[in-house]
Amino acid sequence: MGGFIRNAWYVAAWDNELGDTPLAVRIIDEALVLYRRRDGSAVALSDTCPHRFAPMHRGRIVDDVIQCGYHGLLFDAGGACIHNPVGEGSVPRAARLASYPVVAMNMLLWVWMGDRDKADPRAIPDFGWLDDQATYVMTPTHAMRQPIGYKLIIDNLLDLTHGAFLHPTTLGTEALARGTATVTQAGDRIHYNRWNPQGEPATLFTIAGAAKAGEPVDFWNDMRWDAPGAFYLEVGITQPGRPREEGSFMGSVHILTPESATSTVYRWLIFRNFAKDNAEITRSIEDLVDYAFRKEDEPMLIAVQESMAGRDFWDMKPLLLPSDKAAVLARRTLDRLAATERDERAGAPTTYTIPA
Amino acid sequence: MGGFIRNAWYVAAWDNELGDTPLAVRIIDEALVLYRRRDGSAVALSDTCPHRFAPMHRGRIVDDVIQCGYHGLLFDAGGACIHNPVGEGSVPRAARLASYPVVAMNMLLWVWMGDRDKADPRAIPDFGWLDDQATYVMTPTHAMRQPIGYKLIIDNLLDLTHGAFLHPTTLGTEALARGTATVTQAGDRIHYNRWNPQGEPATLFTIAGAAKAGEPVDFWNDMRWDAPGAFYLEVGITQPGRPREEGSFMGSVHILTPESATSTVYRWLIFRNFAKDNAEITRSIEDLVDYAFRKEDEPMLIAVQESMAGRDFWDMKPLLLPSDKAAVLARRTLDRLAATERDERAGAPTTYTIPA
Amino acid sequence: MGGFIRNAWYVAAWDNELGDTPLAVRIIDEALVLYRRRDGSAVALSDTCPHRFAPMHRGRIVDDVIQCGYHGLLFDAGGACIHNPVGEGSVPRAARLASYPVVAMNMLLWVWMGDRDKADPRAIPDFGWLDDQATYVMTPTHAMRQPIGYKLIIDNLLDLTHGAFLHPTTLGTEALARGTATVTQAGDRIHYNRWNPQGEPATLFTIAGAAKAGEPVDFWNDMRWDAPGAFYLEVGITQPGRPREEGSFMGSVHILTPESATSTVYRWLIFRNFAKDNAEITRSIEDLVDYAFRKEDEPMLIAVQESMAGRDFWDMKPLLLPSDKAAVLARRTLDRLAATERDERAGAPTTYTIPA
Repeated sequence: MGGFIRNAWYVAAWDNELGDTPLAVRIIDEALVLYRRRDGSAVALSDTCPHRFAPMHRGRIVDDVIQCGYHGLLFDAGGACIHNPVGEGSVPRAARLASYPVVAMNMLLWVWMGDRDKADPRAIPDFGWLDDQATYVMTPTHAMRQPIGYKLIIDNLLDLTHGAFLHPTTLGTEALARGTATVTQAGDRIHYNRWNPQGEPATLFTIAGAAKAGEPVDFWNDMRWDAPGAFYLEVGITQPGRPREEGSFMGSVHILTPESATSTVYRWLIFRNFAKDNAEITRSIEDLVDYAFRKEDEPMLIAVQESMAGRDFWDMKPLLLPSDKAAVLARRTLDRLAATERDERAGAPTTYTIPA
Repeated sequence: MGGFIRNAWYVAAWDNELGDTPLAVRIIDEALVLYRRRDGSAVALSDTCPHRFAPMHRGRIVDDVIQCGYHGLLFDAGGACIHNPVGEGSVPRAARLASYPVVAMNMLLWVWMGDRDKADPRAIPDFGWLDDQATYVMTPTHAMRQPIGYKLIIDNLLDLTHGAFLHPTTLGTEALARGTATVTQAGDRIHYNRWNPQGEPATLFTIAGAAKAGEPVDFWNDMRWDAPGAFYLEVGITQPGRPREEGSFMGSVHILTPESATSTVYRWLIFRNFAKDNAEITRSIEDLVDYAFRKEDEPMLIAVQESMAGRDFWDMKPLLLPSDKAAVLARRTLDRLAATERDERAGAPTTYTIPA
Repeated sequence: MGGFIRNAWYVAAWDNELGDTPLAVRIIDEALVLYRRRDGSAVALSDTCPHRFAPMHRGRIVDDVIQCGYHGLLFDAGGACIHNPVGEGSVPRAARLASYPVVAMNMLLWVWMGDRDKADPRAIPDFGWLDDQATYVMTPTHAMRQPIGYKLIIDNLLDLTHGAFLHPTTLGTEALARGTATVTQAGDRIHYNRWNPQGEPATLFTIAGAAKAGEPVDFWNDMRWDAPGAFYLEVGITQPGRPREEGSFMGSVHILTPESATSTVYRWLIFRNFAKDNAEITRSIEDLVDYAFRKEDEPMLIAVQESMAGRDFWDMKPLLLPSDKAAVLARRTLDRLAATERDERAGAPTTYTIPA
């Protein structure tokens, strides 16, 4: 069961990715252009000029409106064509670019890809940590383009036990495969929390100065997922037997924006509440995570995608293990949302049954 | 409405592209090989050996016949297999390469891709300027392969107002968007002439020494198109209010040879009738035009093609502006010619109606 | 008529290609992983983990079993999942990798891709020469990946007259196009032997010191093919009019393993029974053959494949020449084997008729 979810907020960019020039963004197979008005607010329009289909992002911004770089048509922030500089300048009424609701929140620019009357900013998952620069020290923002379908990245993030095997010298530790887990779902949000007692600390924590190699710790991973692709992860350690409150933790944001069936922009940032003045530690964490994502996760997921060779995940009858619970719930949530949208488009009542 | 026109003369090469060795040429999805006989005349044959489908251009020319480089079969200029050097040398009668009529005219080698009995050299559009080396000084010939369907390049060339927006510092000037235009069609030929009074001269004319930046001129662009892809363009300037005869002009040849749905060879050359002894000006003009075609037009048209993502132009319901008139007539002409050929192949009468 | 033969032994690797780490191998569109047990024996399993479809070759070998590099599942040499290191470690009974019979023979690892109960090692073609290091001196083993369907390479090898045109300065000589030939078939084996009297020796023999340029020799090429892709070739020379026994010869192994419709691994090795202590000659032979395969054959066959543009060989109605006899018999043999397998799968009796 495939197809993208349209009635959803997607992250189009980190707020700092959008400067003075038009920014091309692809989301669920649609081409958008973002630009900023003089008051700082962001605009999201279709990137395809209705005249000769030139990408609007190859044009320029003139007094809060955008001009096509091919034949000069001008469109306002609502998408209406307001001027044709050629000849007598007549503008057909039908000439317009689709426009998309945009919300700037928590350092992120969120865009609504679905029916405009369903766009509710309260549905945007909260990443309030990102606004609290006083409490947390953060790595720079990252936006990696990966040639991978976003569901495979969800599978990856919703089962962090893979850290024991794929990231043994970076983000993971063998103890990840042990411990206890709880998975809960509420609406389109899933929590997958793991508690792992008495394990070797991951390199992530030793380079941060929060633990020492050879000295076991208790540690936890608490993951929160909101459909379709927004993750908040807290990983922390504490002395064996001591409560979490006495330990150290790192929070991280992982947000997936599907470009196409086989391409995703993965935006991430890590923050912590300890050793806040140590920029060297920030850099070490950033480098380690970037390495793990690019050199360990990405090649593996590309290889998985190649193995699947375009086949449907469920059709391949994947072996289901207990540790897959959260990832399976997420896939079923996405399947249900897609089915609901299809039914709505067809005018039929929603009768989706979650597969057993 | 798609499909290539077969009953048409296409330029296979500038005459100077064909030397002593076989030349591979792809035209409307067919693979041809061209070679020259000792008397200088050009031969055009299918490039695919009927034996094991080796490309003939990987072979060699021996005494006016061409030998396959794989198993040595020899074919004469008419395409007949005249010798098998292996074993007893028997040659099946059926062994032959398709042959194509070739006409060398105006520095160009024209090939007829359709029914042989319809090949009429009088239908080849005249580029007699090219034979008049006494009157004109010319840039070298160019043959650019562009990963773009040829109709998008026709759209581009038949609406030069884009020069105001895509080429503001090279070939165009803002005044291109003003002025008056006339579009006329006769048979499969379209003229699109623009007269632009009192405008800043384009860089093309200032580097040629024919105008000065900051000193407005009257200028014209007269474009002639012959189906499927041959353009003659005259661009000229004159002092404001003065007749064209007192001005300076540059002629140019732009000929499109479709290789496939998304690949075209664009052959061009620019000539002028002033500053004829100044080779530096010739080089400057050549460099400027080459830059504009490769760095301004080509990326834009590739981007347009990507926006279209394989969809049909008309199905996308393009916004039609007054400045599109010539390009729309050209597309309808090509659609009519393709429909006529389809009807002829089907044995049906031609009943094509030009869309309103 | 297409489709791969499944009930056949394919070479997965030269024995020396498989070391201590898992080896990914693709055969007839299936992904396999090979690894070696402590006793030296080779194991061949499906390369696709049944859990999340990670390639097993990205994992590691632990005590004769293979561990997936993504979530750590362990599979034994028979393909059974024997341990899940995550959580309580339960393993679904259904969890397994397909396994493939492997036979190590004559420096080669042969894998059976079809029905397990039909795997008969006696059907593996004999290359006993490779075990006779006392009699022969050999080049190193080679494994070239070529972006070419294997049937085009069979066509090439089963008509060596192409050496006169494609390899005139390396492996061939004009005399290859003359002489007499015999083609015989027994079961799925074809012999194509050529005897060429009084010809210039090929460079292959002059660099080996077995002949001198300008001094004609009698020479032979004896080719043996076993379906689907195993060739033994003996090429030799003798003084004009003298029996073969007085001459010198080189034997060679050429084994094609189809990876996909357009990719083949071509494994080869050349051996000789003269000038055995001269390592310089061995290197010269190796370099010359490698050059001919990579710079002469491969570009030509890629070009042929492009000419064919995905069309079926027979549908293109290839011109059939007397020198094609062996290659045509081989193609018909492969067609017959494929048809037989299709009929067996369909439960129908085999009624394949060899086309006239």
